[in-house]
This record gives sequence, C-alpha cells and structure tokens, in this order.
Amino acid sequence: MVIGGVAAGMSAASRARRRNPEMDIVVLEKGQHVSYGACGLPFYLSGEVKDWRDLVVYTPEFFREKRSIDVQLGCEALEIEPGRKTVHARRGSQPIDVSYDKLVIATGGVPAVTIPGADLAGVFQCSDLTGAIRLHEFLDTQQPRRAVVIGSGYIGLECADAFARRGIEVTVLGRASHLLEGFEPEIAEVVETTVKAHGVRVIHNRAATSISRAGDGALHVHHASAGDAHASEAAELVLIATGIVPHIKLAESAGVRLGLTGAIAVDERMQTSANSIYAAGDCVETQHLVSGKPAYFPLGTTANKQGRVAGENAAGGNGRFEGIVGTLATTIFEMEVARTGLSVAEARAAGYSADGVTIRTLSKAKYLGGRPLTATLIWDRGSERLLGFEVACEEGAAKRVDAAAVALHGRMRVPDLVYLDLTYAPPFAGVWEALLIAAGEAVKRRRR
Amino acid sequence: MVIGGVAAGMSAASRARRRNPEMDIVVLEKGQHVSYGACGLPFYLSGEVKDWRDLVVYTPEFFREKRSIDVQLGCEALEIEPGRKTVHARRGSQPIDVSYDKLVIATGGVPAVTIPGADLAGVFQCSDLTGAIRLHEFLDTQQPRRAVVIGSGYIGLECADAFARRGIEVTVLGRASHLLEGFEPEIAEVVETTVKAHGVRVIHNRAATSISRAGDGALHVHHASAGDAHASEAAELVLIATGIVPHIKLAESAGVRLGLTGAIAVDERMQTSANSIYAAGDCVETQHLVSGKPAYFPLGTTANKQGRVAGENAAGGNGRFEGIVGTLATTIFEMEVARTGLSVAEARAAGYSADGVTIRTLSKAKYLGGRPLTATLIWDRGSERLLGFEVACEEGAAKRVDAAAVALHGRMRVPDLVYLDLTYAPPFAGVWEALLIAAGEAVKRRRR
Repeated sequence: MVIGGVAAGMSAASRARRRNPEMDIVVLEKGQHVSYGACGLPFYLSGEVKDWRDLVVYTPEFFREKRSIDVQLGCEALEIEPGRKTVHARRGSQPIDVSYDKLVIATGGVPAVTIPGADLAGVFQCSDLTGAIRLHEFLDTQQPRRAVVIGSGYIGLECADAFARRGIEVTVLGRASHLLEGFEPEIAEVVETTVKAHGVRVIHNRAATSISRAGDGALHVHHASAGDAHASEAAELVLIATGIVPHIKLAESAGVRLGLTGAIAVDERMQTSANSIYAAGDCVETQHLVSGKPAYFPLGTTANKQGRVAGENAAGGNGRFEGIVGTLATTIFEMEVARTGLSVAEARAAGYSADGVTIRTLSKAKYLGGRPLTATLIWDRGSERLLGFEVACEEGAAKRVDAAAVALHGRMRVPDLVYLDLTYAPPFAGVWEALLIAAGEAVKRRRR
Repeated sequence: MVIGGVAAGMSAASRARRRNPEMDIVVLEKGQHVSYGACGLPFYLSGEVKDWRDLVVYTPEFFREKRSIDVQLGCEALEIEPGRKTVHARRGSQPIDVSYDKLVIATGGVPAVTIPGADLAGVFQCSDLTGAIRLHEFLDTQQPRRAVVIGSGYIGLECADAFARRGIEVTVLGRASHLLEGFEPEIAEVVETTVKAHGVRVIHNRAATSISRAGDGALHVHHASAGDAHASEAAELVLIATGIVPHIKLAESAGVRLGLTGAIAVDERMQTSANSIYAAGDCVETQHLVSGKPAYFPLGTTANKQGRVAGENAAGGNGRFEGIVGTLATTIFEMEVARTGLSVAEARAAGYSADGVTIRTLSKAKYLGGRPLTATLIWDRGSERLLGFEVACEEGAAKRVDAAAVALHGRMRVPDLVYLDLTYAPPFAGVWEALLIAAGEAVKRRRR
C-alpha cells in the first residue's frame, strides 16, 4: 500500500507494479488528484499552461486500467497500526481500515510557517494542485491589482514571476538578506536585478507577522525585523511561500523513527525503522553526499527517485538511493539559476575550510550574442575538493551545473576540473566553460 | 618562440607572458591573422556574423601593445635547427633566422585528402580565416546556385548549413555510411532528418575521386563507391571538408618524435621528444582517457588548453594536460548534437565489451513545449563503466553531454549514474534527465 499519490507515491506504486505484476497495490490519496507535476504549478498560474490537466502526467483511470493500481481518491490515512499491519483511514466521513503487507509513506510536506490571518479570503499557499486551481480561479475572477508574496525562495519567486506576467504589481517579502537563501549572494544579486527589471518590488530581512483585512477590503501583510519598526504592505492577493516541513504525523503514529532534521529517517533502501514500512519524497530526510550529513531537501525530482527505490524494494527488490548533492534549479523570468552542492556558509557549517570564487563570462560566442553568465565555485582549501557550484544565466545555467553535480558525486578535486573536456561550439558555449574558468581561478588563488 | 598564431599558439604566448613578464616572446604566423575563432567561420559564411573581424578575439596590435608579444605576420617557419636553437623562416621572399630558448610548435593541421581538381576556381577548403574570407567573397560576388560539400563530418555539415541559409542548393557527399562518422547511427539519423528538412541532399558511401570543369562552366564532382558505377554532381561551388591531418613537416625537421597517430607525440607537459621544444593544438596527438590510447582529435577548445599548458611550461611552469575524453559538439540548423567518449565501434576496437542503449525523451516539460531528445549511452558490460554518451536535441544537447564527460573523467560506472542529482525544472528539463534514463535502461538490460 502507498499513502500519498503525487511524485513519490505514484513512482513507488508504478515501480512496484513493474517489478511484481501480481501483487495488489492500493494508493490512498486524500486529495482529488494524483501524479501531477507540482513544479509546473507556477506556469499554470501565469497562464503559460492553459489547463491544469496538462500538468497531470497520468490520470487515476490510467493507473487503474493500465497498471492495475487501485487509486483511492479523497481517502485520508489517519493512523498506522504496524502491529496489525493496518492503516485506519476515512473516505469523506466514512472510516475504513486497509491492511498491507508492505507500506510506503509518501505524505509529502506541509507549510512551514503559520501566519495569523493565513485563513483570510485572498490568502493562498501554492502547495498542491487543488490549491493552485483555487488560486487560478481567484486570479481570473477577482483580477487582483497587487500581490504580496511572503517568502523569497524559489517558489516565492516563481509565483511572483507568474503574477507579474499577469500584470499584477508584486512585492516579495523575505526573511533572508538576499533572494534565494542558500544561493551565494553574487548569484542571488543577478536574479534580483532581473526581478526588479520586471517591476517586482523586493523587501529583504523582514518577517511577516500577520495578515489582516483593512476597512477598504485590502489585505495588509504586517512585517517586522529585529530593531526595526513594524510596517505593512497592502494587496488584494497574498501568497505564502515560506517553505515546507515534512508531514510526519502519520509516520509518528506508526512509531517510525525521525531523523535529525525532523523528517522520517530512512536507509539507502528507503526503509524506515519500522518493519515493512518504507518512506519517500518530501516527508523523508536524505543523505547529503557533500556535507556527509542528513538533510531535508524536498524536491520533485528527488521524490521520483526515492519513490522508485521504495516501490522497488516494497516489491521485493534491492534498489538503493544513496543521497543528493543539493542540486536545485529554476527559471525566474528569463533568468535561469541553478546550484549544486553546498554554499560557502553551509560548507563551513559542515566543517570545511570553504571558499568561493565568482567569475563572469558569456553563455556562448560574443559574435553570436552571448549572454552574461555569473558562476560561483565553492571548494575546500584543505582537500581542494569541489563543494559547490552555482550559475545564473539566461541560457543554459542549469545543465552547466549538472557537470559540477557529477563532479560532486565523483568527489573530484578542483585542480582536476581545470582542463575537463567539455563541449564547445560558438552557438552554445565559450571556449572556456564557466566551470573551467572558475576552477582555474580557484587554483590560481591557491598559489597566492 | 611560438610557431603558429591561432588557438594553441596565441594561448601559449599569452600564458607564457602571464607567467613571465620579462621574457621575449615572438610568434611567427605565416598568415595575416592571429587569434581568431576558427569554429566561428561557418557563421561568417552564412552571414550570421557580418564581419570577419568579429571572429578575431585579439588583434596583433593588442598582443604587441598589451602583452608585449612580438607577432610576426606573413612569416613562415621552414626548418628548426634544434642544435643551434634556431628557426629558419622567410618573410615574403626574405630568409630570416630566429633563435629561441624555448619553442612551442603550434602549426595546426592541413587538409587530409587532396582531390584532383581541388585547385580549380570555385573549389574551397574552409580551414583558415584567409580561406573563409575568399570563400565569402566568392559567395557574395558569384552567387552560386548549387554547392557540393565533400565530407559529411561536422565541418562539412556546418558549411552545408551556412550555404543553405543563403538559399544555395546543397549536396553533401560522404564516404561514411551515415552523417557525422564517429557518432552512433541513431544520433546521426536525427541530424540527417534535420538537414533533409532544410532541403539539403545527402549521399552516403561515396568517395569523391576528382573535380572537373564541364563545358557549361559548372564544376563536376566525380564520386565512386566499391562495386558501383561512377557518378557526378554538378555545382558552381565545391567545398572540401574531408578533415585534417597534423601539420608535422616542421616538427620532423627538428627530429621530433611522432606518435602512433602520425601527430607529434607530447607528454602531459606538452613537451616533445626534443629538448626545449613543446607542441600544442592540431599538430599533436593526445591521450584519450577512455580508450587509454593516443588519439588525434583536433579541436579548438583542446588547442586552447594545450597551448596554455605549453606556454606555462615554456615559461618555467609545471602545467599538465592529461588528455581528452572525446567530447565534440555542434549545431546543424536547429539541431544541437554532441558526443563524448567512445562510440560502440571505437570502444570495441579499444578492447571493451561495449554496448549502446538509445533512449528518446523530451528536452523539458511537455506542457512547456518539450522538444524530442535522442540519446545513446555506450558502456562496458564487463566493468559497467560508462564509455560514451551522445545526444541530439534542439535544446541543450551539448551541456547535457558535459555531465557525461565529467563522469568519464571520473571513470564512473553506469549503475552509479541512475540516481545522479541533476537539475530539474519544467522550463529546461524533464524529471528524469536523459543520462539517468539511459543509465537505468542499461542496468535493466544487464539483468536480462
């Protein structure tokens, strides 16, 4: 049985089916949708994707008919009783018990911060398809003129982008000192320049404290920072994008061990501490292969991989997911931005004598219109090991970071990166690829 | 002293200057141009780059004034006398002797095949800037209606692309059984579909035997294949792009050892067998880190790296260039195509029990207009080591291959690639990156 029907859950169910054509597979999903691309929600909000159905990879009918997977929509799991191998659930108001041989918990995440006033009309969180459909309808029917996005991470910025494309005046309010916390400031700065060029206002170092409705009907987002007066922003629409925490209530009911990050602890086989119970996706923690420590790094692509391994093993296989290297990428307006590994601050916290090197080059030959590219390489001055790499560029930032991600998986040293044999041709690259330039610059500084 | 002023030569001179601000540095260049992007010549021919001066990275004046490098244009080195550390050269008809302490040979390559009739008016080789300027003038003044490109490798196709963009009817004539020899047939097929869609005719398995001028003034390219009647193609323009061989005449005069490939043998420091003589670029062979054998793989990006190492060491440094992994990429019309490592045939010839796996996916989310992507992974069934990776796709093929290139440098095994933490977001990638899908497919086949 699988609890949760989005990325990890449906990957687990599908993989289990492929491995074992005979076993009964049931998926309990409390919402009305399964197997959708949550990462595509901002493109639906912006109008770039016209119909939310385009975000659905496979329908429940497809799973039932083509994969013989019993998808139970609107069915919320309430408690796991591992001794009896039973899940207590309800469909609507009707309690049901479902027994299992093997269980995969894929309950995802829930919003990290609850702000007083979050339940007011016009305040949204874009954490699932149902919520996105509601928000989309609000955008179409209410035509808000102003929006405040609480949270300056990648989801907040993706939504700010979507709103701005609809002509809405957007203010992004972030707790951190720069956009995209976790990215290096030099890279975040490139993104900030881009969002400001599109008319988005940005406020840093401010925490939203509450949301209220004023007499004129507008929402007011109150915010504060240490030692500073309170202030507020008015808008017709407020989006809360302050990140998620693992949804672990159900796992706790089963007595499953949690990890240091507060998410469900799993081994490489995605098995929890409980017999016959696996977990995958935004509810688990994973090994960060660069820091060597457990990390909570919820992403759809990781959820797919973990789900596949959990499903494989629940069906008697022996798949392994060793961990992540901290890769993350997005596109904000025309700017593609991506990172892998640790930031300087994260690396120092992990015990490395880390340093960063920022370089600027072009995406491709100047005579073919090469666009500015900013890259930061993070490395350990002691071992000379590569620790991270970040790129902001309108063209090809993400796939450039992939090369560094592989180098992190391979635990490669920066001096060994200087002459890597990477692709070059004038329409898509410079003779010296950004990773090579940055590695060369790091090595040069070593000599000083 | 440096002989040759294009990619390797000017990189060597510049690096030597950076390392040693005091030493005298002279560059002998037989042509009239230095430091230009030879890889950009097709974009000049097509008209995408209006002025050939845009291809010149730095002018001779720049090198003289800013880097104190004495660039001697129109100065052809004829013989090296290592005993006296002297190069015999001529400027125009004037013989001159130039002495050196350290010498870098960067004489590049010369056309591989000489075809009778190659000296006729209207027949060109696009191997240097001077030749490209002449060809460009021919295109502008003669307005040829038809062109035959002899050679179906990447340079032939880039030029076919350039001619077709000018409205010329193009026929590509290749000796190999598919375009882009060295690429896997499945990848080459994608490119063939593209070039044909742009009206380019393609003839495989035919060797050009001679070129003649007919009574009507048209050029005729005669071609033949084993057991087949001779035939010919008529055109006003013929381009010979049958590859290059190392230009080693000068090196031979110095008694420098040649390698198995016929190119100059160098060690990791780019030093030849002769005392105080280095060599770099299209005149040297290099170590192929996947086959473990010397290879002749002339490319501008490699020339830049080798030149830098040669210059570093000629100035007393200790740089090392360990070798290549066989990375090559280009864009033919809208199709980007790239490879790294060995093809199945090359890998088998190198002693591997190699096999290829071809997969098809999309460049990015379907709902954002993902384009078809074809990828072939080549691996060793014995050691499970990755041996090669090739991609054809209108978007991001090359930088996708970079991830595999790094995996080749790191000698990674295919089972370790299945869950690599690579970038994902709907605007530029699918949840499962092509390399991961192909690796997963290879592992699945292993089980059979």
